[in-house]
Amino acid sequence: MMHPLRKHIEELIDLTDEEFEFVLQHFEPVKKRKHQHIVQEGDFVRKEYWVVKGCLKSCFFDDEGKEHILQFGMENWWITDYESFIKKTKSEINIDCIEDSDLLYITYENRERLTAQMHKMERFWAKKSKYGRIALQKRILSLLKNSAKERYDLLLEEYPQLFQRVPKKLIAAYLGVSRETLSRLSS
Amino acid sequence: MMHPLRKHIEELIDLTDEEFEFVLQHFEPVKKRKHQHIVQEGDFVRKEYWVVKGCLKSCFFDDEGKEHILQFGMENWWITDYESFIKKTKSEINIDCIEDSDLLYITYENRERLTAQMHKMERFWAKKSKYGRIALQKRILSLLKNSAKERYDLLLEEYPQLFQRVPKKLIAAYLGVSRETLSRLSS
Repeated sequence: MMHPLRKHIEELIDLTDEEFEFVLQHFEPVKKRKHQHIVQEGDFVRKEYWVVKGCLKSCFFDDEGKEHILQFGMENWWITDYESFIKKTKSEINIDCIEDSDLLYITYENRERLTAQMHKMERFWAKKSKYGRIALQKRILSLLKNSAKERYDLLLEEYPQLFQRVPKKLIAAYLGVSRETLSRLSS
Repeated sequence: MMHPLRKHIEELIDLTDEEFEFVLQHFEPVKKRKHQHIVQEGDFVRKEYWVVKGCLKSCFFDDEGKEHILQFGMENWWITDYESFIKKTKSEINIDCIEDSDLLYITYENRERLTAQMHKMERFWAKKSKYGRIALQKRILSLLKNSAKERYDLLLEEYPQLFQRVPKKLIAAYLGVSRETLSRLSS
């Protein structure tokens, strides 16, 4: 059976067996239990994670202690605090496991080494990064433009599986509405 | 004198004279007057622009006809509708010139050709795309977390030159506040 990471990469670029083996040498596996974190506010984040199995959230707390969710991560998603990872700043967010999660991670140094040596992988992440940027642009448009009801419908349309796997209060924290408002939207 | 695009690219990667000449062959210059657009809602956007001189805004109108600003673009900034450019969808935004602007553009096909042939340029845009993603992540955090006053202060701190060059009503449209609120924030 093809390695899930290879399958994922080959959706965008082709790799030979040797090339994939070389890529895989740059990753390490890690298992986390539900409620464990991979990033905490204040960390200098040196790893990017790819979700083999599980579900995570990146989130932060505002001055009133209210939780806001920036992003969810499920199978085949890449997740880290990109600001901290790339600019080497202290993280302002937390990334926690919502389910027990199997992850593969690559360190910043290994990623730099791999992309410098292998144009194909530079190309792969360049494409991924473009799609990530588009998703964020859509999120901003939606925050500025859409009502809570429209944001709920968009999320349901784009990620129906989230609604099965993620507690309602986290969906509310992603949409920026209260639990009560969410109940009204989903009825 | 070094070409401004070369100076810009060499902030991230080194190029030989021959390499820069090759890169430059993939671009075309275009001049636009104040109030002219480079992208209109409904366009299939096939060009990415680099600002040699001038100032632009990417914006959209909500159902009530209210203008929202997604991004400004000034000297050395890259601007296009990345969703339309990459996914070949119809644009949902407008990009207009706030000042007379000198631009260089590269078509999608030329960019694909250039990055496929030249690992260095793939690397350059990969880095740029990462920084673009970080800026968008910061914008989302700020929209979810900060008050209008905090968003105003952050913008002033990060882009002081915007406040000299851009009409107040556009700063208000970027922050998502009314002209009256903006006057209160800036006093």
